[in-house]
Amino acid sequence: MTDSTTRTLDPELEAELREVAHALADAARSAILPYFRNRDLCADNKQPAGFDPVTDADRAAERAMRRVLSDLRPEDGIEGEEEGTTPSKSGLTWVLDPIDGTRAFLAGAATWGVLIAVNAGGPPLFGIVDQPYMDERFVGGFGRAELHRGGFVGPLSTRAARGLDEAILLTTFPEIGHPDERAAFDRVRDKVRLTRYGLDCYGYALLALGGVDLVIEAGLNSYDIQGPMAVVAAAGGIVTDWQGGPVHRGGQVIAAANAEVHAAAMRLLRG
Amino acid sequence: MTDSTTRTLDPELEAELREVAHALADAARSAILPYFRNRDLCADNKQPAGFDPVTDADRAAERAMRRVLSDLRPEDGIEGEEEGTTPSKSGLTWVLDPIDGTRAFLAGAATWGVLIAVNAGGPPLFGIVDQPYMDERFVGGFGRAELHRGGFVGPLSTRAARGLDEAILLTTFPEIGHPDERAAFDRVRDKVRLTRYGLDCYGYALLALGGVDLVIEAGLNSYDIQGPMAVVAAAGGIVTDWQGGPVHRGGQVIAAANAEVHAAAMRLLRG
Repeated sequence: MTDSTTRTLDPELEAELREVAHALADAARSAILPYFRNRDLCADNKQPAGFDPVTDADRAAERAMRRVLSDLRPEDGIEGEEEGTTPSKSGLTWVLDPIDGTRAFLAGAATWGVLIAVNAGGPPLFGIVDQPYMDERFVGGFGRAELHRGGFVGPLSTRAARGLDEAILLTTFPEIGHPDERAAFDRVRDKVRLTRYGLDCYGYALLALGGVDLVIEAGLNSYDIQGPMAVVAAAGGIVTDWQGGPVHRGGQVIAAANAEVHAAAMRLLRG
Repeated sequence: MTDSTTRTLDPELEAELREVAHALADAARSAILPYFRNRDLCADNKQPAGFDPVTDADRAAERAMRRVLSDLRPEDGIEGEEEGTTPSKSGLTWVLDPIDGTRAFLAGAATWGVLIAVNAGGPPLFGIVDQPYMDERFVGGFGRAELHRGGFVGPLSTRAARGLDEAILLTTFPEIGHPDERAAFDRVRDKVRLTRYGLDCYGYALLALGGVDLVIEAGLNSYDIQGPMAVVAAAGGIVTDWQGGPVHRGGQVIAAANAEVHAAAMRLLRG
């Protein structure tokens, strides 16, 4: 699935889309951070019943991002987790997940992220996984993959090939998917050196950073995967569904550091 | 188990021990950070076979901390993960785990920590959980619990009591302990609102921050628990073994935000 993220557009349009994507991530950061680890907003501090700071932060961030797009790219479509779909007049569509990992957010763990991608009707051309609290922005597409942190920019690249017995596998929940999916996942888990749980979208960031070899998940939506997929593919990884087909619409996802580890894990997933 | 961490010493000695603990954490940070996410140190970059950057970082940090203690508190004992025990001549002993969460470290996830505690032969009097990459230092004991981050210091306090059906539970591995332990853990897991995995010592930090209600683990060593225990207790939490007894020597650990959630979870652990 690397074809889409190595595809190029007019260089001026690429530069514009890059800039808009960063503006979206900046807007989401400002909207969300006041809610993260804010004890005054917690239910045990006399808030009305049913008050949910994550939902509030989620909505505020999506509204902020929609305002940026209506200013800068009013003809583009929007597919957002919270407020549904706006059809595209330009051929380009932004796919937004203001807070991926709401349970991590609730617990105060900085493994949630803001997911942003832009596509031309197919797989993402460019994407961002932003972790505002850690000031880490993982960016990929149009021929580059980068980590922006504290004013510095460095390259992202996935790990070199190694045997599954040396590989590190990530997933969010040990209770992944339904029983068939769980069995397929367990066949991979039983072969790898190490399995880690609970990282949400930050797992894809670690894959792009070269820290781990595989992320395997099920039941994803397009807004859960398009941002991470663009970053991982631009960093040299491979992201497909469990049959090796396109996965930008969501479903069962395998993201691998390289073709070798992808092929080895796919053989086990297929059973 | 809050008695030990509310116990006070001579104020000058307390101030000195506080300062030494921060000096230890500073020394460990400097020793470890060059190894974290350092691709040049990874085995796939032509290092000799068997080279293990985590073990190297672990040892370098423990050596650095031992140097600090031999300068500043040469009569104190040391119990370290890597280099064993030095007996105490002063009555005080430092308990050190240079990198708790080596698997997270390997994967590039910033949930590992440097654990430091000082005791007078019993439970910890004062402790630190330091996350160098995030620049977060959780500190507790001698009547205070604080988060130090980026030059700012803020208070830590655990969450107010709530029903288990509203509680968030953390543990490191879903494969916790042996089958009996797993069954006991699952009884709690089945009652809480949400269970998260994979946070290592950072789970205790989130408990002290007030983000979660419970951390339950098994098979811990004294150096795994003394630092976190001091921080959680100073922040208002309760840390015991699964029978409600002292746990500073390790084993099965339950750390709770308050007495109510501790009691409710203990009933389920006992079966």
